[in-house]
Amino acid sequence: MSEIPVISGDAVFAAIDPRTAIASVRQAFERHARGDWQMPAKVYLDSQPHGDFRAMPALGDGLALLKWVTSFPGNSAKGLPVVRGEVLLSDAETGEELAVIECSSVTSLRTGAAAAVSAEVLAAEGARSVGIIGCGVNGAWAARCLAAAGYGPGVCADVRAEVAERLAAELDWRTGDRAEAAAQDVVVTVTPGDEPVILASDLRDGQHIAVLGADAHGKREVELDAIERCRLFCDEWEQASAGGELANGVEAGVVKREDVTQIGDVLGGGAGRERDDEITLFDSTGLAIQDLAICRAVYERWKSGELDAPVVTL
Amino acid sequence: MSEIPVISGDAVFAAIDPRTAIASVRQAFERHARGDWQMPAKVYLDSQPHGDFRAMPALGDGLALLKWVTSFPGNSAKGLPVVRGEVLLSDAETGEELAVIECSSVTSLRTGAAAAVSAEVLAAEGARSVGIIGCGVNGAWAARCLAAAGYGPGVCADVRAEVAERLAAELDWRTGDRAEAAAQDVVVTVTPGDEPVILASDLRDGQHIAVLGADAHGKREVELDAIERCRLFCDEWEQASAGGELANGVEAGVVKREDVTQIGDVLGGGAGRERDDEITLFDSTGLAIQDLAICRAVYERWKSGELDAPVVTL
Repeated sequence: MSEIPVISGDAVFAAIDPRTAIASVRQAFERHARGDWQMPAKVYLDSQPHGDFRAMPALGDGLALLKWVTSFPGNSAKGLPVVRGEVLLSDAETGEELAVIECSSVTSLRTGAAAAVSAEVLAAEGARSVGIIGCGVNGAWAARCLAAAGYGPGVCADVRAEVAERLAAELDWRTGDRAEAAAQDVVVTVTPGDEPVILASDLRDGQHIAVLGADAHGKREVELDAIERCRLFCDEWEQASAGGELANGVEAGVVKREDVTQIGDVLGGGAGRERDDEITLFDSTGLAIQDLAICRAVYERWKSGELDAPVVTL
Repeated sequence: MSEIPVISGDAVFAAIDPRTAIASVRQAFERHARGDWQMPAKVYLDSQPHGDFRAMPALGDGLALLKWVTSFPGNSAKGLPVVRGEVLLSDAETGEELAVIECSSVTSLRTGAAAAVSAEVLAAEGARSVGIIGCGVNGAWAARCLAAAGYGPGVCADVRAEVAERLAAELDWRTGDRAEAAAQDVVVTVTPGDEPVILASDLRDGQHIAVLGADAHGKREVELDAIERCRLFCDEWEQASAGGELANGVEAGVVKREDVTQIGDVLGGGAGRERDDEITLFDSTGLAIQDLAICRAVYERWKSGELDAPVVTL
């Protein structure tokens, strides 16, 4: 019998600030690129017509993680969360259960942090202004993480005006339309991916674009003509080329493996942005190693007594 | 925020008796064969040299399940459980988290119940005596489920004498050596799979053999010559031919798809045992749909107030 903490989303957000999330996710990309952290492909469990569940395993630093998470696009309209579920953390040497952690909080922190890491690594020298297209939960955390990394002020755009206004007010940024947001130095897209929100005509020299919304086959946030104008990066080629934004370019034959650099390889000393005026595009599909990095930090906070959680007997 | 029960192994065992487990697992095989319940392939996360973690999803009856479970063979020698982890249960329509359930209790019940279902479906008319080879946790539950289904008395064999004695005493059966156990009407093997425990020379006309221990590539409990003498059944061909006992026969070229019937197809009216004197062999690799059947019963007991569990906020 194990006694393990069950850590709520509120407890996760209280324990992990954006700077901690950014440092954790940066380390996850580095360690995965070096081969220290392992991550088999995620499994999808279809639950049509509602969406799918995903089981995402990862291993590193003596911990094994399984994220069980929904992507139920229609839930928004019902007032239910699109992303929900739990993370299970185990000891990689003994198999012992260590913690159950609420999953949407972890997902938001690691997704937002990935946008900030990509800007730190790939945005042009002097890039500061931010455009957020799609200001839902994950868009808001991308904005918070970019602000914590020193970017801003920004333009918040969302088809739901009140959602954009709330985020703009929180960060002392402003609202704007899609085209205004798309004209900023660092642009983040976090939409459902039903139609392109970055057009070729939006692009400006030197921009950095972080594409976070397209996390499954068929989703699309960027026009193909726009993708062709960018230097391309991703979190992981396997996942991005199969179900991320880049999958659309791969299918159309305009994106090949050798055109795309994984961000961990840039952090390890590989080529990143090469000219101030080129446009960099980072396709973030969301990796279990990012979840592992956040959950390791959460679990360490709990062990050191900085985080309160009920303890249950299995 | 969801409020969900965390259900311990003790609570699972208190709520689900062997008869309930058998009826549940039988239904799982039937519903999966009919296509009502879905189950993508499980994912393995290597954690060498200790073993591996497995993420096993399943969907059915409005529920989505993920089992996160270890197979750490070396843990026995350290006094630690080989099989441990959690099951997560979610609502398949809303994605809502419903429960966290201790996993080794679920695994034992569904593994033991599969042995009993296979005997009910495949053993010869009048078969009664039982041999258990390997009397660890899952071997003991196979014995309990067979006893609940009316089989016995039995012979308990284990290289650890005290383990066999404890099980024999519990069920008022007797202990014996491997060959004695292998000579009974219904034989169950639940060993680590390092070497064959059923030899061709052990076989007697009309026996039913349930092979439960070989649940990963390279494990083996039955001599190839013995497999060739049996009419073959399994829980699922994909899993059994890739990592179960039958995988050894497939690799050796002596077992082909058309030689093997899935037990769900027998329950659906397909051909099972055809003669009293033939020997039936059931390769049980363990399916997530079996876990789903047990966990659905557990969750229903909790909802109806028959099971106590602490409730936590995610």
